[in-house]
Amino acid sequence: MSKQQIGVIGLAVMGKNLALNIESRGFTVSVFNRSPQKTHELLENEAKGKNLFGTFSIEEFVESLETPRKILIMVQAGAATDATIEQLVPHLDQGDIIIDGGNAYFPDTQRRSKDLEAKGFRFIGTGVSGGEEGALNGPAIMPGGQESAYELVKPILTAISAKVDGDPCCTYIGPDGAGHYVKMVHNGIEYGDMQLIGEAYHLLKDTLNLDAKELHEIFTEWNKGELDSYLIEITADIFSQYDEETGKPMVDVILDAAGQKGTGKWTSQSALDLGVPLSMITESVFSRFLSAMKEERVAASKILSGPAKSFEGDKQEFIENVRKALFASKIVSYAQGFAQMRAASDEYGWDLKYGNIAMIFRGGCIIRSQFLQNIKDAYDRDPALKNLLLDSYFKQIVESYQGAWRQVISTAVANGVPVPGFSSALSYYDSYRTERLPANLLQAQRDYFGAHTFKRVDKEGVFHHQWF
Amino acid sequence: MSKQQIGVIGLAVMGKNLALNIESRGFTVSVFNRSPQKTHELLENEAKGKNLFGTFSIEEFVESLETPRKILIMVQAGAATDATIEQLVPHLDQGDIIIDGGNAYFPDTQRRSKDLEAKGFRFIGTGVSGGEEGALNGPAIMPGGQESAYELVKPILTAISAKVDGDPCCTYIGPDGAGHYVKMVHNGIEYGDMQLIGEAYHLLKDTLNLDAKELHEIFTEWNKGELDSYLIEITADIFSQYDEETGKPMVDVILDAAGQKGTGKWTSQSALDLGVPLSMITESVFSRFLSAMKEERVAASKILSGPAKSFEGDKQEFIENVRKALFASKIVSYAQGFAQMRAASDEYGWDLKYGNIAMIFRGGCIIRSQFLQNIKDAYDRDPALKNLLLDSYFKQIVESYQGAWRQVISTAVANGVPVPGFSSALSYYDSYRTERLPANLLQAQRDYFGAHTFKRVDKEGVFHHQWF
Repeated sequence: MSKQQIGVIGLAVMGKNLALNIESRGFTVSVFNRSPQKTHELLENEAKGKNLFGTFSIEEFVESLETPRKILIMVQAGAATDATIEQLVPHLDQGDIIIDGGNAYFPDTQRRSKDLEAKGFRFIGTGVSGGEEGALNGPAIMPGGQESAYELVKPILTAISAKVDGDPCCTYIGPDGAGHYVKMVHNGIEYGDMQLIGEAYHLLKDTLNLDAKELHEIFTEWNKGELDSYLIEITADIFSQYDEETGKPMVDVILDAAGQKGTGKWTSQSALDLGVPLSMITESVFSRFLSAMKEERVAASKILSGPAKSFEGDKQEFIENVRKALFASKIVSYAQGFAQMRAASDEYGWDLKYGNIAMIFRGGCIIRSQFLQNIKDAYDRDPALKNLLLDSYFKQIVESYQGAWRQVISTAVANGVPVPGFSSALSYYDSYRTERLPANLLQAQRDYFGAHTFKRVDKEGVFHHQWF
Repeated sequence: MSKQQIGVIGLAVMGKNLALNIESRGFTVSVFNRSPQKTHELLENEAKGKNLFGTFSIEEFVESLETPRKILIMVQAGAATDATIEQLVPHLDQGDIIIDGGNAYFPDTQRRSKDLEAKGFRFIGTGVSGGEEGALNGPAIMPGGQESAYELVKPILTAISAKVDGDPCCTYIGPDGAGHYVKMVHNGIEYGDMQLIGEAYHLLKDTLNLDAKELHEIFTEWNKGELDSYLIEITADIFSQYDEETGKPMVDVILDAAGQKGTGKWTSQSALDLGVPLSMITESVFSRFLSAMKEERVAASKILSGPAKSFEGDKQEFIENVRKALFASKIVSYAQGFAQMRAASDEYGWDLKYGNIAMIFRGGCIIRSQFLQNIKDAYDRDPALKNLLLDSYFKQIVESYQGAWRQVISTAVANGVPVPGFSSALSYYDSYRTERLPANLLQAQRDYFGAHTFKRVDKEGVFHHQWF
């Protein structure tokens, strides 16, 4: 019997769709699922007549694969991944490749990579972005692990990935946890983008009293310009959809309590570990928390007062200013996210290629946008670029939009509309371009109460002052 | 030979000072240090003629203590703590009490507590606040662990603690990691207080061009009112001190690159785990990171432009507005910190007493202030208070100060002075009191691209819309 080119373990929707995607590109695929029911269902339905080979034991599954084996694990991140690896390992040969395509926490990937490498196996931890639909038709793929292993699975991964202008949205990211790390930061950036769009919506709705139809028109217009992106596009579309039951705009019947799966939180926690100021994305995570405290907010809204809302000025000008504030804040958010990847790359020795990463985000991903090409261009101009804000293209936009940005925040602040994303992004911009921050006072305080010492502006060394 | 009442392991400055403090209150103390040199030095100097009993092996140290033994470990947090416990354990009797007074990460304390309890020993993880000077003369003490163990060490801990109005700044916090957790949040709050003072300083200096002498006068004045606190007091004092070498104000010769020891970061990471919006303190952590990027900022300051600085209006009024913005932001910071303690208490089953915690912060701690009494009063009025902002006292201040607060932020934003703390605090206030946040759009987006479902405003259940 001929052997299959790749095997997929775990036939929940992501695994199933990836298996079907792989098969559709002309590769032969073995599948295995802990409960045989799912395998039977797949074989009898979506996979009928296709080169999908169902197996019903780990032994049979492993045996069915050509060597070096390529095994894609699509089970729940965490303990299930470890259990699956443990089950597999006794049946594998040296040099076989395990690929974890789940949403693993990157230190887990680092650990698994090390363990498996020590045993003579190869391991790829890969981010897969694009949800169910992407898995079936073309996700963005961010593989990390041994480059030798990547070379062997590259034909399959690039074939199944999304394509933009003919280029596959899949590139080798770096060793061990690099792939899952980049996927994590991608998700953090997604939180940031969604937060900023939410703030723009909140401001336009509450300050100008715009309705869904008007909002649909504004976002449709915005999507034609430099904000052109999947999230702006679907936002425009969302505003055009109405609830069948009540006839109201869909947005108006949906509860304002955000859910999440935790990868945004990981991004912030890693930034804190690395010493990277990831304020904008972290405010987005906190905003989701605040939104989820719905009952407490409803109660608080009856107790705590705000200012009267009033808007005077030109509506069209304000709408354009909000667009500029959104775009400038978005640039800061990406600047922070890419600075975090740089810090992680230095810390973990990954040698990340930021421009290539931006390019693979262009397809399959939720954050896909025209703008990512500008990031690629910036890193082409200067591969050692420390911060996107320093690139000529982004600098020019932020500098010329800052007047609008500042005005929008002032209007929001005066009207009591919370803009944690816009504000933290601007604070970052203003801090980053400030030669002298007030941390000299902070160092004086620390030296005063804890003799923590300080450096001086005028000479090298470490000093302590006798404050009392 | 008579036995000593308590033993202290680790004679670096904190351990040494705590041992001397304990002895000074009439207790007999054994001391032990890994290198005997430190013990000899202590006995021959500060401890000369005092009831401090030097020991030179773990066996001798343990043997010298009355049972149940009370052993205070003051070694570096982390591996050294584990190593010390491991060394001690074989020599202990059932029911002996180990007290870790280092800056342990609370999950470590939870683990140690569980391990030692399983072996029949008792364990107290205690926060000790007040630095070297506090350790010697009276720190705030936050002990967590078995209450039975606390009862046995209570006479010593309360005796050595700071006193305010005759009350000891030491109270039983709760089981296992509760003491170290509360100390951690205390440190986060300290980060927040220092950040807000820094922003006030930055604004006054850069917008009104005030010099150190004027700043000294302002902070001295502020310290007479509701901002009355140790940090405002030392800030006023700092502005009055001059560098002998250059004759310049001390603050002007100190480099604006903040240091830190990592407990602020832990507070933010725990908030992220618990789902608590700790935005103000987290911005303080990120601001320290940004300040530490001194070289990068200097380079960026030459590339990225800001607005022209200009101030029109009444100087005295602006100074008073900054005071109000600082106080309102401080209230939000404490509201967030105490909300986090509540979430941790629920998560870990600690049954924290928030009013008592506020009371022990009044002495020894860096964050000691008049204001903590108002927090105690709030929890006396309503022990189940969900958020300090909802208390009548704090509500009234924040509501009446919000006009000034909003104006100050607008001035800062217009002038390019970063105010991440003031802004994030206001965003929190405005989010918390907003019945309807824009997270409905976010949920629509998540349902659109990932079929994540949503809740509705008008009926129970979980829904999905066919967006395309």
